[in-house]
Amino acid sequence: MPEYELLYWPVSGLAEPIRLTFVVAGIPFKDTTPLTDPEFNDRKLALHPYAPDAAGLPILVFDGKVCCQSRAILRYIGRLAQHEGAFLYPTEDPLEQLLCDELIDLSEDLRRPMSATVTTQYKDAAEKEAARRALLAADGECTKFLKVLDKKFGECFPTKLTIGNIYAWSIVTMFRQPTFIPEIPADALSPYENLTKLHQWMSSLPAIKAYYESSQGRDNYKPL
Amino acid sequence: MPEYELLYWPVSGLAEPIRLTFVVAGIPFKDTTPLTDPEFNDRKLALHPYAPDAAGLPILVFDGKVCCQSRAILRYIGRLAQHEGAFLYPTEDPLEQLLCDELIDLSEDLRRPMSATVTTQYKDAAEKEAARRALLAADGECTKFLKVLDKKFGECFPTKLTIGNIYAWSIVTMFRQPTFIPEIPADALSPYENLTKLHQWMSSLPAIKAYYESSQGRDNYKPL
Repeated sequence: MPEYELLYWPVSGLAEPIRLTFVVAGIPFKDTTPLTDPEFNDRKLALHPYAPDAAGLPILVFDGKVCCQSRAILRYIGRLAQHEGAFLYPTEDPLEQLLCDELIDLSEDLRRPMSATVTTQYKDAAEKEAARRALLAADGECTKFLKVLDKKFGECFPTKLTIGNIYAWSIVTMFRQPTFIPEIPADALSPYENLTKLHQWMSSLPAIKAYYESSQGRDNYKPL
Repeated sequence: MPEYELLYWPVSGLAEPIRLTFVVAGIPFKDTTPLTDPEFNDRKLALHPYAPDAAGLPILVFDGKVCCQSRAILRYIGRLAQHEGAFLYPTEDPLEQLLCDELIDLSEDLRRPMSATVTTQYKDAAEKEAARRALLAADGECTKFLKVLDKKFGECFPTKLTIGNIYAWSIVTMFRQPTFIPEIPADALSPYENLTKLHQWMSSLPAIKAYYESSQGRDNYKPL
């Protein structure tokens, strides 16, 4: 098996679904952040396949290859990773693959409006907090997709682990305090009974539970 | 084979890569738009799996199932569709799948800033045109990803058809006049030699060429 190194900021974000996929499949990887590598910024620019034109993270390095698209990396590792005898990206059954991909894309619908508040320049902290609260108002851009995800898990609760469940759970958990986005209200996820059920199921899986017992800054990933 | 129906607006957009995947594999599908179905809006709301909370297009209907995530649909059809004996979504070889997924995600990086100008409310047409031109300026949000895509196709020109090439070409072609986004400058793609080479290759494939000979409003998909 090649040596995998993942470079990202020291928060969950777009790297966490990839980290979790390695973890549940028991595949070792080097989890490199600016906290673990003082040369992080120089290495990032030297390694990045899109430099100098663009330089987003994460980056996965393996076997002399480099990829920097988070969901392409997730599908690649998910295609190799197994949990309880099944691949985490189930491409052998087209319908299972469809459901998995739908969860990933639906989670992107939820993530994008939040992500836009990270790249937008606000005039002060109050304006940023108001923008983030608006996403979660009754008619908010994130509220509508939290409702859709909650309904989806209510209609069809997962019976096995996939990168679709992992991605959905990771993105939803950005909305659960204490998260690295401090302006999210503490009760943002309380209306969503099926997302709470998903949280308890995922966070109690032995490999995931053991991982977060020793991880820093991930209290939002632990069982409630 | 099930009967496939795809519902979308009568433009290329997010449905075109799916339509092209059907076309190159010779899989019949019903291409429903408001121009072909007077009940379009009512059917869209009745069928949409996320209604009433969200209602984006396209929608694929088949075998009593409904999916509305465009890239999940694309991967599903790509997993079933073949061209010259190979599946269009190559999930059997993880590295081929990675390259294919990277092209899809990179095309999304290019599409998203343009897409934001569709959902933004501008005070007048001049402001909208300025916003779209800014995306394509020397330091524009789309320019940087057009450069990355051009470099990528320069380093590794495709030797076979995948949904990755199809998606990249479809998104790039939104920037080639005459497109359904009238504010794009006519010469937006002229700096990109490898994207031009990709265009000539894709648009000259016999199934694609035949399809666009009889399609309305798709002159930008024809060979230069």
